[in-house]
Amino acid sequence: MKFRSLTLALGVALLSSSCATTQQSSTQAKAQQTPKNIIFLIGDGMGVEHTTAYRDYADDLTTKPIDETVFDSMLVGMASTYPDDHTVVTDSAAAATALSAGIKSYNGAIGVDTHKEPLETVLEKAKQLGKHTAVVVTSQINHATPAAFIAHNEKRSNYDQIADNYLSNTYQGKPVIDLMMGGGTKYFIREDRNLVNEFKQLGYQYSDDIQNLDVLTRLPALGLYAPVGLPFAIDSGEHPRRLAPMATKALELLSKNNPNGFFVMMEGSQIDWCSHANDIACAMGEMDDFAATLKAVKAFAEKDGETLVVVTADHSTGGLSIGANGQYLWKREMIKQIHASIDTLAAEMTQNKDVKAVWNKHIDFALTDDEFNRINDAVNNNIKGLKPALRTVINQRTVTGWTSLGHSGGDVQVFAYGVGAEKFAGHIDNTDIANTIFSFLK
Amino acid sequence: MKFRSLTLALGVALLSSSCATTQQSSTQAKAQQTPKNIIFLIGDGMGVEHTTAYRDYADDLTTKPIDETVFDSMLVGMASTYPDDHTVVTDSAAAATALSAGIKSYNGAIGVDTHKEPLETVLEKAKQLGKHTAVVVTSQINHATPAAFIAHNEKRSNYDQIADNYLSNTYQGKPVIDLMMGGGTKYFIREDRNLVNEFKQLGYQYSDDIQNLDVLTRLPALGLYAPVGLPFAIDSGEHPRRLAPMATKALELLSKNNPNGFFVMMEGSQIDWCSHANDIACAMGEMDDFAATLKAVKAFAEKDGETLVVVTADHSTGGLSIGANGQYLWKREMIKQIHASIDTLAAEMTQNKDVKAVWNKHIDFALTDDEFNRINDAVNNNIKGLKPALRTVINQRTVTGWTSLGHSGGDVQVFAYGVGAEKFAGHIDNTDIANTIFSFLK
Repeated sequence: MKFRSLTLALGVALLSSSCATTQQSSTQAKAQQTPKNIIFLIGDGMGVEHTTAYRDYADDLTTKPIDETVFDSMLVGMASTYPDDHTVVTDSAAAATALSAGIKSYNGAIGVDTHKEPLETVLEKAKQLGKHTAVVVTSQINHATPAAFIAHNEKRSNYDQIADNYLSNTYQGKPVIDLMMGGGTKYFIREDRNLVNEFKQLGYQYSDDIQNLDVLTRLPALGLYAPVGLPFAIDSGEHPRRLAPMATKALELLSKNNPNGFFVMMEGSQIDWCSHANDIACAMGEMDDFAATLKAVKAFAEKDGETLVVVTADHSTGGLSIGANGQYLWKREMIKQIHASIDTLAAEMTQNKDVKAVWNKHIDFALTDDEFNRINDAVNNNIKGLKPALRTVINQRTVTGWTSLGHSGGDVQVFAYGVGAEKFAGHIDNTDIANTIFSFLK
Repeated sequence: MKFRSLTLALGVALLSSSCATTQQSSTQAKAQQTPKNIIFLIGDGMGVEHTTAYRDYADDLTTKPIDETVFDSMLVGMASTYPDDHTVVTDSAAAATALSAGIKSYNGAIGVDTHKEPLETVLEKAKQLGKHTAVVVTSQINHATPAAFIAHNEKRSNYDQIADNYLSNTYQGKPVIDLMMGGGTKYFIREDRNLVNEFKQLGYQYSDDIQNLDVLTRLPALGLYAPVGLPFAIDSGEHPRRLAPMATKALELLSKNNPNGFFVMMEGSQIDWCSHANDIACAMGEMDDFAATLKAVKAFAEKDGETLVVVTADHSTGGLSIGANGQYLWKREMIKQIHASIDTLAAEMTQNKDVKAVWNKHIDFALTDDEFNRINDAVNNNIKGLKPALRTVINQRTVTGWTSLGHSGGDVQVFAYGVGAEKFAGHIDNTDIANTIFSFLK
């Protein structure tokens, strides 16, 4: 019996009134119910099939039971994700607004309601309580998910306005956000405005080398490590993990001198991007970085004892399935043999035209003649068809299914650990997550 | 805050030792931890996307928040489903063996291990304890899922042998199974053997009219309501529900004169079959019958107070996604306008060749010219392509995605209610479900 290692659920029948009373009367228990620190992790696009696929992928194939993951140790329930319209399939902006402000809005909304009016976010509320605030992401830091915690804008694609709002959204004269780590120099160092310099003038430390995170020694701080999003984990060579080291640095900074604690949102942003590309090896690389991040965060919370960790996805991306086309099989061992994203494969093949050389440089299994012909034909006669051809070959060989280059509407998992974790159990709505966090911010 | 209506989960930190001690010392609590009656429901092929889709489908469109379902009120966790090999994608037989016997086996295995040796099942164990035993399904009663609870066979397709085993698998001289309801006269009334008569000779009541379930007044009993599986709910006219009324009758019979209680496995067998056909309206019809069954079962357990209800799926079928092909949308309102299965549409079109007449008889929205041409061409020139053409039209119009005519490998949900429900919380393996049930059978 492997379950219940971290969470014990009690049915109503068992939770006798005497026990509830005992707990309610315990000052210690009461104090424990309100976390000092809140770490909110979002796996963008991370559906159920993604976490199962990651378990299969990360498993030690030399032993028989499939090894459990850090996600498994923290599962408490699931959340519905539909936006405030009749589409029932959300985008990242509406979902992030639900998760940051506890109110459903329209697809594209950044921290605003259906009337485009600003909504208070849990990050802003945390700031009002004197907590340190942070976002740590692998997308540009002004992408939809982090933006919905820090800014208010009617449209997610207004990237410059959103970046400007990171500076102008203030509490008691200072920006509400103390620490930002991710990509986005394109939006922060512009011809019309240099937000990095403006943040520096407000006393923010700045860092732009992700291999040298120790430049950051205190808050407030801003780290921008790429023009837009960071490179995919699978394309990052010897240092595939980017979120995990940023998260570790962030926790170090946030936990210094913080009598009031902190709120941080950390996002595995590119699980979504790889899934939009229907690129399974790329998605598994991002899942691995996100899982490593979660392990580090959980270890922090375990040691700290005053921290809540809550994890969810904003939606599922790609309509991923383990197994496809009638085959009862998923070739996880082959996915481990792929060492570049489809984007990289396509870019290199477009440049040098030598399909086999590029393939064999990055992938440990050989193309069949049919596969080679399909890809080579695209390279020479239909360059727009190259990525689709690579997708088809890799997904057919690994028996990976996808239904869409967009999102799907199924419920997503909720994982929690630490102080207050029990509040997220069972079936909830994505807005309930923000509203429960708000209930801790009093 | 809509959650925690039925399940209260407590983290380890909260479940202080004093509270645990209080509970352990309570005789009442101890008694409550072992259910007298166990109702195990299996939604065959029911993945996460199925339960979310059903919520969207069943929702009252005139009100804004999407209405919660009976599933939502009972969600406690999720289970992994992989079989005992490296495919990671299970079939119904291996999954049912894991769920009935607590041991992973090979795809195709009916209550036997990887050496083809019989495994004790929870139904057999319940019988040894003097409990009444039952299976209630919409497939033939000797299909993989029920078979793995009652019989032992190396191969799921040995239908006649499995049916024979229902009679020959005995405890103290009587068949281990007291009540069987579902389809399967083809396998029970054969040229070589009439198992119905043999069961009658052992004192079993027999019924073959599902509209007249009151023929059954006592145990043991056998109800066979179709040659193989029952007709799809969506094709069943004024009486779309078959599992729900059978389940209600079963509970009535099982709860009479049973000092030792009962064990029953109820299966929404054809969620899987509709999903193998990638037929979303058909799948929603089956989900509706399964949800109605679960409501009735939960009401029984609520009133009874000594019953455990546990619900899961054996695997997900079809790689279903809400939304597809890049569209952030699912046209649930159109799915409600479809009143026949693709099988029925195809059969009628094959017979009378009038595509529009058949379509308009069963479906409330009209075909476009392109759609008509695609279907009509199949009817006249490529009859094998007719079902694929109907699938394509319906799935494109409703924006429903599927990756496979087979199964997929993602974790499935676990729902529980009543005595012992808390034991199924968090991430578990499918074998843990059987093993927890075994722990109650002592």
